[in-house]
Amino acid sequence: MQKKELFQEHLPELVKGITNSYHQDDPSISYFKKDLPNRDEIIEIIHLLRQLVFPGFFTQQRLSENSLDFYVGDLLMKLEAKLKKQIRLALLCGSDVSLEDAIAQAECICIKFFQTFPRLREYIASDVQAAFDGDPAAADKVEVIFCYPGTYAIMVYRFAHELRLLNVPYIPRIMSEYAHNITGIDINPGATIGKYFFIDHGTGVVIGETCEIKNNVTIYQGVTLGALSTKGGQMLKDVKRHPTLEENVVVYSGASILGGETIIGANSVVAGNAFITSSVPANTKVGVKAPELKFKNGTGR
Amino acid sequence: MQKKELFQEHLPELVKGITNSYHQDDPSISYFKKDLPNRDEIIEIIHLLRQLVFPGFFTQQRLSENSLDFYVGDLLMKLEAKLKKQIRLALLCGSDVSLEDAIAQAECICIKFFQTFPRLREYIASDVQAAFDGDPAAADKVEVIFCYPGTYAIMVYRFAHELRLLNVPYIPRIMSEYAHNITGIDINPGATIGKYFFIDHGTGVVIGETCEIKNNVTIYQGVTLGALSTKGGQMLKDVKRHPTLEENVVVYSGASILGGETIIGANSVVAGNAFITSSVPANTKVGVKAPELKFKNGTGR
Amino acid sequence: MQKKELFQEHLPELVKGITNSYHQDDPSISYFKKDLPNRDEIIEIIHLLRQLVFPGFFTQQRLSENSLDFYVGDLLMKLEAKLKKQIRLALLCGSDVSLEDAIAQAECICIKFFQTFPRLREYIASDVQAAFDGDPAAADKVEVIFCYPGTYAIMVYRFAHELRLLNVPYIPRIMSEYAHNITGIDINPGATIGKYFFIDHGTGVVIGETCEIKNNVTIYQGVTLGALSTKGGQMLKDVKRHPTLEENVVVYSGASILGGETIIGANSVVAGNAFITSSVPANTKVGVKAPELKFKNGTGR
Repeated sequence: MQKKELFQEHLPELVKGITNSYHQDDPSISYFKKDLPNRDEIIEIIHLLRQLVFPGFFTQQRLSENSLDFYVGDLLMKLEAKLKKQIRLALLCGSDVSLEDAIAQAECICIKFFQTFPRLREYIASDVQAAFDGDPAAADKVEVIFCYPGTYAIMVYRFAHELRLLNVPYIPRIMSEYAHNITGIDINPGATIGKYFFIDHGTGVVIGETCEIKNNVTIYQGVTLGALSTKGGQMLKDVKRHPTLEENVVVYSGASILGGETIIGANSVVAGNAFITSSVPANTKVGVKAPELKFKNGTGR
Repeated sequence: MQKKELFQEHLPELVKGITNSYHQDDPSISYFKKDLPNRDEIIEIIHLLRQLVFPGFFTQQRLSENSLDFYVGDLLMKLEAKLKKQIRLALLCGSDVSLEDAIAQAECICIKFFQTFPRLREYIASDVQAAFDGDPAAADKVEVIFCYPGTYAIMVYRFAHELRLLNVPYIPRIMSEYAHNITGIDINPGATIGKYFFIDHGTGVVIGETCEIKNNVTIYQGVTLGALSTKGGQMLKDVKRHPTLEENVVVYSGASILGGETIIGANSVVAGNAFITSSVPANTKVGVKAPELKFKNGTGR
Repeated sequence: MQKKELFQEHLPELVKGITNSYHQDDPSISYFKKDLPNRDEIIEIIHLLRQLVFPGFFTQQRLSENSLDFYVGDLLMKLEAKLKKQIRLALLCGSDVSLEDAIAQAECICIKFFQTFPRLREYIASDVQAAFDGDPAAADKVEVIFCYPGTYAIMVYRFAHELRLLNVPYIPRIMSEYAHNITGIDINPGATIGKYFFIDHGTGVVIGETCEIKNNVTIYQGVTLGALSTKGGQMLKDVKRHPTLEENVVVYSGASILGGETIIGANSVVAGNAFITSSVPANTKVGVKAPELKFKNGTGR
């Protein structure tokens, strides 16, 4: 009894301490600024988009030729309602637009986004094919769709990239960082990535904002496609800081390829753990001279 | 008002574009094929199995000697209902079996799976012990059970491995990829792993489908036990492509051990970042000759 | 019909097998020991704490100057009820305290923890600033707060570290391992970390229990701040096993810095993939002499 009163006694002072600290916040993140997009809703949108990409896989509904139009129509209406609202909030919060314009733009952006869907599905289907073709452990493409983290991260990147091309603030990055949470694969929505892309295992992969990846590229866990230095911080915004991978390149696990002028030529292979900061010609295998191993008799750690 | 109509106007065309794209899908992933297993249900099964392994840890129920039989009986009945259904769906979708046979097989598989549980618990208890013994930061075994990601990933692997031995399609990989999502540790259900296995920190660990790991092995974050090359793709299915680790081996962080004929002998230690593609005898410490460091005066990135 | 009976027939024997295996458990993890803290509740506490740190970002509520006191008061009361209960359970389970003392201590700990909140917010605000300043891909600080995994992991670490300083068992590690699950960033609650700390990308980062990190440090994905060897296991508890990073240090991706006596001096830069086991003076750039690359004509993996 007494105990309970102890907290109650302190409550006014605790509240005051915290609200005071709010008043010292940087205005750019201050609580009363504007309504903000809702992260949980954006995650729900990803789930619905996945149902639209792979009908039958992530719902309990049984589909047939006859029910297909209803399934798609219903999903699109649900998605439009949710996405339009989040885009409107993102535009109002991240750009200088009037409420009226934000409403109109959000509607248009939704329509344009859904119009890209047949093409997006074509790309995503090619990614599924690439995963199956590239991994002897894949039983079939059903397994790939159900559980391959690389395929999931690339799919979410493809959604996020389209929305970024349509100049939507915040939402693309919230989407791709959600996929990063789930998979350990960090693909910035700004990267440009061709068809038939495969990331195996994937944990620790980083693909930077200004990367260009052509068709039919495979990369493995722990690969960084990064910047040489970020010393410049915000002054480097919009500069090409990340590498280009031409068609049919393979990059094995743990390799780092850095720099905006670094180009890995078509059909080249980068070996595990290589550290590359300048361009590699086409049709080349490049690896580190494996550092000499030293052997010593004796056990224990 | 007008705005709302804009989307409604486009809706029929958007639906048509998407349903048309469904009709071009590879038949192996086509929506109307068969009922599929449900990923959310499989995740729920993992949660229930964990409650069965560690009674009292992941429920709100208070247990005692008297309530134990009821707790276990109730969990088993819930689990059997869910697991039997998912196994039936997986068999129907991933193999050429009649509905009648699928129902019968699913029942038998459930019983066989639950019969392995006392042995599974013995293995999992040895993994908990290994984590406590191996990590000075572990307060006690309660902490290990509550939050060690390596212990969690190994537990889920042990469930998935048993189900794979019972020839269940899809579900083992969905389970292990879920654990991969949660922990960043990617253990293929096909790997064979002995008792008293410890993975510390774990993010980025990859253990391939045909690995063999004997008793009392410890590995650290970022370790890859992988294939030398996957150029062969699906033609390599069922070939031993991943290494063998004998008893009491330790592999430190970031090391890669590759190839199906690579054997790390008993009691050997592989140092951090080593890149190993051929066998190492027993009782050996093997490391890279640390590449020379270069020092330069000057700050900045 | 028959099939259903098959499982029912086996049920008593299956229950018996499993309850028998419970009786062989190590007493330290035995089911009937004590009530345990609840992991789901602790995760909910993290969500509520985040709402208190960043008002307006992770709720649907619209806030204003007038509603702020109510928002904070309400959150504090909810948090206190939940946190006090979990702390009481953790104390009863992880230390030798009477129920009465546990209740009193839990109340006091809650108050002390909330009193640190204005200071915690100041630190977390500096971490947000560091992320924005350090990453050219960051649109603004709103984006950082919504989705940067490094910022999230550091925030949860800051909660966990305070609770650890207040001698709360289990809960700090459950919190930090939850953030590890979400982000792939493993920060032990025992580490000591200054202001304006930035972890970019972050997957695979490990920061050990006895690390000291001063103000204004930046580290990248895959960095390990670890122990040289854990051969000693539990005998090493409380020994300083992990390195110290002085002010303004930058550590690039994949570098490992090991050992309790290793100090990286102020303003120094550790290059990607460096493997450091002894101290580095202030104002130094240290990197590996990049291993020679070998180029070979030819494609294929």
